[in-house]
Amino acid sequence: MSSADTSIHDLMADLGRRARAASRHMARAGTAEKDRALLALGEILQAQAEALRSANALDVEAARRAGLEAAFVDRLALSDKVLAQMAESCRQVAALPDPIGEMTDLRRRPSGITVGRMRVPLGVFGMIFESRPNVTIEAASLAIKSGNAVILRGGSEAIHSNRALARCVAEALERAGLPADAVQLVPVTDRAAVGELITMPRYVDVIIPRGGKGLIERISAEARVPVIKHLDGNCHVYVDDTVDLDMAVTVTDNAKTQRYSPCNAAESLLVARASAGSFLPRIGAVFAAKGVEMRCCAQSRELLEAVPGAAALLRDASEDDWSTEYLAPIISIKVVDGLDAAIEHINRYGSQHTDTILTSNHQHAMRFLREVDSAAVMVNASTRFSDGFEFGLGAEIGISTDKFHARGPVGLEGLTSQKWMVLGDGQVRR
Amino acid sequence: MSSADTSIHDLMADLGRRARAASRHMARAGTAEKDRALLALGEILQAQAEALRSANALDVEAARRAGLEAAFVDRLALSDKVLAQMAESCRQVAALPDPIGEMTDLRRRPSGITVGRMRVPLGVFGMIFESRPNVTIEAASLAIKSGNAVILRGGSEAIHSNRALARCVAEALERAGLPADAVQLVPVTDRAAVGELITMPRYVDVIIPRGGKGLIERISAEARVPVIKHLDGNCHVYVDDTVDLDMAVTVTDNAKTQRYSPCNAAESLLVARASAGSFLPRIGAVFAAKGVEMRCCAQSRELLEAVPGAAALLRDASEDDWSTEYLAPIISIKVVDGLDAAIEHINRYGSQHTDTILTSNHQHAMRFLREVDSAAVMVNASTRFSDGFEFGLGAEIGISTDKFHARGPVGLEGLTSQKWMVLGDGQVRR
Repeated sequence: MSSADTSIHDLMADLGRRARAASRHMARAGTAEKDRALLALGEILQAQAEALRSANALDVEAARRAGLEAAFVDRLALSDKVLAQMAESCRQVAALPDPIGEMTDLRRRPSGITVGRMRVPLGVFGMIFESRPNVTIEAASLAIKSGNAVILRGGSEAIHSNRALARCVAEALERAGLPADAVQLVPVTDRAAVGELITMPRYVDVIIPRGGKGLIERISAEARVPVIKHLDGNCHVYVDDTVDLDMAVTVTDNAKTQRYSPCNAAESLLVARASAGSFLPRIGAVFAAKGVEMRCCAQSRELLEAVPGAAALLRDASEDDWSTEYLAPIISIKVVDGLDAAIEHINRYGSQHTDTILTSNHQHAMRFLREVDSAAVMVNASTRFSDGFEFGLGAEIGISTDKFHARGPVGLEGLTSQKWMVLGDGQVRR
Repeated sequence: MSSADTSIHDLMADLGRRARAASRHMARAGTAEKDRALLALGEILQAQAEALRSANALDVEAARRAGLEAAFVDRLALSDKVLAQMAESCRQVAALPDPIGEMTDLRRRPSGITVGRMRVPLGVFGMIFESRPNVTIEAASLAIKSGNAVILRGGSEAIHSNRALARCVAEALERAGLPADAVQLVPVTDRAAVGELITMPRYVDVIIPRGGKGLIERISAEARVPVIKHLDGNCHVYVDDTVDLDMAVTVTDNAKTQRYSPCNAAESLLVARASAGSFLPRIGAVFAAKGVEMRCCAQSRELLEAVPGAAALLRDASEDDWSTEYLAPIISIKVVDGLDAAIEHINRYGSQHTDTILTSNHQHAMRFLREVDSAAVMVNASTRFSDGFEFGLGAEIGISTDKFHARGPVGLEGLTSQKWMVLGDGQVRR
């Protein structure tokens, strides 16, 4: 290691040790203390608005000077509105039930012991994110509520904002009598710090990356601890052979066009042969009106050619299209024989994120639910519902496309584990 | 890659592809079919006893010729008794409730959708184990019941036995109309096959190694998929400052001496200063009578010196002793100030497996349960209870000392995940 690397290594190990120590304290903190810290954080964010805006101005100014695009600068800015939302989200997290200490499944065993499970924090998680400084507050508040410690590594473009926000969090923790080390920001912008953070199993129990696919793939490949990650969202809408056509048009339209960029937007439309003739021209007209490019199999193209305004938006789908997440006004369209072919297609080309069937057939609905191997499977609902808030989790840490541990939208529970507890009065094993 | 490596690579990829395809079938198999396969397997194992014994004789003979030790040869042997036990365990797994398809937490959301969770198989797991051929049947029956496919990689010393057992499993699957590829044995003994098995995330979702610590560490370090693993079992008994001494002696004795080799046997005894004078001489006499070597802190050594027969068994504990899993008639003993020091010691030196407090103090019991960061925490019970059958899981896949996904004794549920399900009647996101 170069001497710079050595010092980053030592710096990160020090953060790690402090996080581990703080996590012990957080694990035994009461709900009242944790909520006090969250409410204090909400107040401090508003009281410190001016200082936060000045710190943020340094980042915004630097981003402008560096010629970064307007959308990027926009995401970076801590407006009064953003600050108010951050404060409000702290209050909302305070209002959520505390997952920690929950005891479930207690039952007496023939040996006389009572066995159950107790929900406890994971310990320390590392959060790696890109430009939005509000993730600092989101991750801090989720860590506090779930009794974990967190090490935050934000984008270098937001370093001044993140430092100022981290100071607010430290003050809130101290006001509540909790250790300030429970939420630490990596104070340097060196990339080597990320390499250290994801390879310290002694100090960090899980990594949650938020950002582009490249970042997430790199982190997953190099991490030596579990990663809660979300890769592609190649979501499917399957229109079955018996279906309410009005409903199918409304839901398909919503799944694709309500917003193009979220990971739960539909990217691929499968239509049962029996419905294709009646359904495709209608949805084609909607897509044509909204300028959605349609990448079609031969049969769907034929059915869409005659739709007014559609012709210019039609393309032949390539094999790659079936596995592509466009995040744009583009959709791939395929006519399939029916349910079996749809399930097979989704399990083959999908990304195990969110897929929906639109159908009137109960057996088909149940088979789709059971057999599509995705984090969220839906019947007669828009894929856009695949979201922690819509699912009632109160807060969303991320969306996992893995099957291990947490799957799909991950709430506070994803930052916990269940240990076994045994209550006896002197039992021994025979 | 050498051409031998290429052919192993191709062989394993082929097993993987077939396992993945079979897993789709298994995921939708009904409980009745799966149970039929398990009951058939029980019958076939007994009907084929002679063929199994002949295959096994080849392995036993080779092991004897190779001069392997008697205990090893013993574990290898498929006696009538072992075969009967294997058949019985198939019937027991058939009698367990089917975890797959369980729907829980269904609730209506303000948007009108109903959101819930459905339990589904993980997909394909890889089981890597050493000599005992009965693991072949154990893993096969757990895979069948949980709707997963499995690729089995047993020790090369048991290859003839395992091949014969795998043929029985294939026959049982076919009798029940399930795909024989749901349970495949790696047919070669090359070590490169393990390297392939643990680095095929496309075909294998999780690896479960069973064997020595060296094997498990190597697999964990090299795997590119999650590993359900159990490393050390450095289990502690903490005798608190207020405690029923008779109970404490009985439980401590059981935790240490009922059997020395299991991972849930106690390896370290912590005694609150206030109890040391009364408790240590009593347990010391028990250990002395059983020839248990005691590695002591200065204070405990002083209290134990006078115990008849103990002196020859006393050693000074080194720093290493606090983190050592002996799996032998040896125990480390330390006098601590009280509860706080005990919790700190366990969280620092323990292996997060199983730890117990023996106490009459309710507050101390609850703090120990909450603050000791181990897979199983106990009050007034022997650590030896940390076991899937004792906990009521019906079957034990393994014990996990990780916090992610499954923790502690892992039953069928550890081979499943919960996906989200959404039932709507045309809802769209606003």
